[in-house]
Amino acid sequence: MTENRIVPNRKSLFLRACRGGPVEHVPVWMMRQAGRYLPEYRAVRAQHSFLEVCKTPELAIEVSLQPFRQFAVDAVIVFCDILVPAEAMGLPVEFQDAGPVLPRPVRSHSDVQALRDFDPDKDTKFVGQAIAGLCRELGPTVPVLGFAAAPWTLACYMVEGRAKSGFGAVKQMRYADPALLRALLEKIARNTARYLKAQIAAGAAAVQLFDTWAGELSAADYDEFALPSIQLLLEELAAGETPVIYYSKATNHLLDSVSRTGADVLSVDWRIDLKDARAKCRKRSGPPFAVQGNIDPAVLLGPVEGIRQAVRDAVAKTGGTGHILNLGHGILPETPVEHARAFIEAGQTTPLSAVASSASGI
Amino acid sequence: MTENRIVPNRKSLFLRACRGGPVEHVPVWMMRQAGRYLPEYRAVRAQHSFLEVCKTPELAIEVSLQPFRQFAVDAVIVFCDILVPAEAMGLPVEFQDAGPVLPRPVRSHSDVQALRDFDPDKDTKFVGQAIAGLCRELGPTVPVLGFAAAPWTLACYMVEGRAKSGFGAVKQMRYADPALLRALLEKIARNTARYLKAQIAAGAAAVQLFDTWAGELSAADYDEFALPSIQLLLEELAAGETPVIYYSKATNHLLDSVSRTGADVLSVDWRIDLKDARAKCRKRSGPPFAVQGNIDPAVLLGPVEGIRQAVRDAVAKTGGTGHILNLGHGILPETPVEHARAFIEAGQTTPLSAVASSASGI
Repeated sequence: MTENRIVPNRKSLFLRACRGGPVEHVPVWMMRQAGRYLPEYRAVRAQHSFLEVCKTPELAIEVSLQPFRQFAVDAVIVFCDILVPAEAMGLPVEFQDAGPVLPRPVRSHSDVQALRDFDPDKDTKFVGQAIAGLCRELGPTVPVLGFAAAPWTLACYMVEGRAKSGFGAVKQMRYADPALLRALLEKIARNTARYLKAQIAAGAAAVQLFDTWAGELSAADYDEFALPSIQLLLEELAAGETPVIYYSKATNHLLDSVSRTGADVLSVDWRIDLKDARAKCRKRSGPPFAVQGNIDPAVLLGPVEGIRQAVRDAVAKTGGTGHILNLGHGILPETPVEHARAFIEAGQTTPLSAVASSASGI
Repeated sequence: MTENRIVPNRKSLFLRACRGGPVEHVPVWMMRQAGRYLPEYRAVRAQHSFLEVCKTPELAIEVSLQPFRQFAVDAVIVFCDILVPAEAMGLPVEFQDAGPVLPRPVRSHSDVQALRDFDPDKDTKFVGQAIAGLCRELGPTVPVLGFAAAPWTLACYMVEGRAKSGFGAVKQMRYADPALLRALLEKIARNTARYLKAQIAAGAAAVQLFDTWAGELSAADYDEFALPSIQLLLEELAAGETPVIYYSKATNHLLDSVSRTGADVLSVDWRIDLKDARAKCRKRSGPPFAVQGNIDPAVLLGPVEGIRQAVRDAVAKTGGTGHILNLGHGILPETPVEHARAFIEAGQTTPLSAVASSASGI
């Protein structure tokens, strides 16, 4: 199928898809595409710790490029971690086998006041250097993506102190001292805006906000806490022509709300129907809103024909325009490399005309 | 407020609520109400392992009664674990600090064939003994609830082998060998039907199915795998006059499907609007469908006035009939006992007439 996969300008393709413009095929990439399922990633990690790879531009560049070399994905996301800004704000972060730990979680007003407004060009300059290096390596025709956590999701880590502890502490804060949670979200939003501005200045063609824990909130709480902090972030970021992608997980109950963040692309998981997401986006005024997603990463553990069918089904739901094909969450470490390849190839070769007629039921 | 809380017949109240009939107030209980937040529970557990409490009727009876003694909850659920049937089917289960572990997970057709059809009157007779003992202790006016995992949720544990490993193995089975997953779900459904039948025979006034992991599935996968297994279970159970409560978590995207299980009561979490759940249930033909839920357990970590407001809001959504007030998930271990009491009291004292006018916006 290689002859079908030649894309003269992936960056143009990606940006057209973000704006809902005409495309030859859906652009396709995978969350966590630089990751443990790739032997060449494991080889780097055998020599260097996770944080070392994040903070050493040449290593971050190397692992970010690995999926592009393997599959010619349509976007290269910089290798980094969503907790990097938390550390830059003054919270120690330890990456342990069981996941990240923040030994001094944020619990009080004085904890929030103690958080530093950091300087991305100094405190996290390795991120900008990795993005700039990737842009040099890849040239002007491949989009490099920057990213950060959305404020609510970063607040969960900063308050809980570990990834898998549930949400007891951050929710207790929400109920016992909502003003404290608001102050924390605002501080994160302002710092994240500057952090992403620096990534765009370094050459990021688009940036993605990861709101992995949004689905934990009721609609009322999302609207009261999470949504205003994202809106503040995007206002401060003022990304202009640079598309912002907003990813959330398990947010079917928040579909109205997540389409009101102001982001250009709504990234959803397999529990939201792409048609529903699309319809919600189209009803809104403002710029055309594209969707990203939404294959269950577990589909890539199954047979190749099932992967191809899932891709055809997803592209049929959107007709193929205004759609960036992706997984609904990060690729699983146990995914066979050839299955990841099948996913990328299926996305890049599913013809849009056939799709359109299948989508309209002809 | 004690004078308002006298309930001549909690069993009648509970059963009327299940059928959507007239009630004096919403009945209220809490998932995991016999649990670590109670000092008297921790005292028992300091002497006995978790499994020992499950399998020793006098201990199970003692801890099941603790929340009734504390708060006069409107239903007493028998203390047990959803993995008890897995063990009875022949899978060893170890309760470790980090959660349950099944060291010999189900991965192949021969693993499924090796699962035993167990005899609840023999292999899990301690459950029936605990229920019968609770009925004796409590008399005919307090409902005792039985329970089991729904087939999909039990299958997740049986295939993954541990609670917090994600869903890689069970989803790989779904994609690589759907017939194997179906065979496993069917075997679980048939065994669970007999297990619950024995609980009803022992005196359970109602039974609850816990489908904690339903929300992980797309709507298509829920309809193809989870739903038919619940329907088979309920058909085999033939509970007749005994209400069946179906609990699921994070299933806003499955609201159409979860209202089609055939259960009498739909138990939802804080991410589903009780009005939506109610509307969905009312649209269905067949017996009136009640709702249960849906307060975020984290609300009970916050101030008492917030707990009371959350209860008033929930009861206003339903008007108070056909509504069993509960949490949206198990009570958190760090919940202050007085906050649990405030929740129960608020439910039992929120007057329905005030509720009705507030719900209709007058």
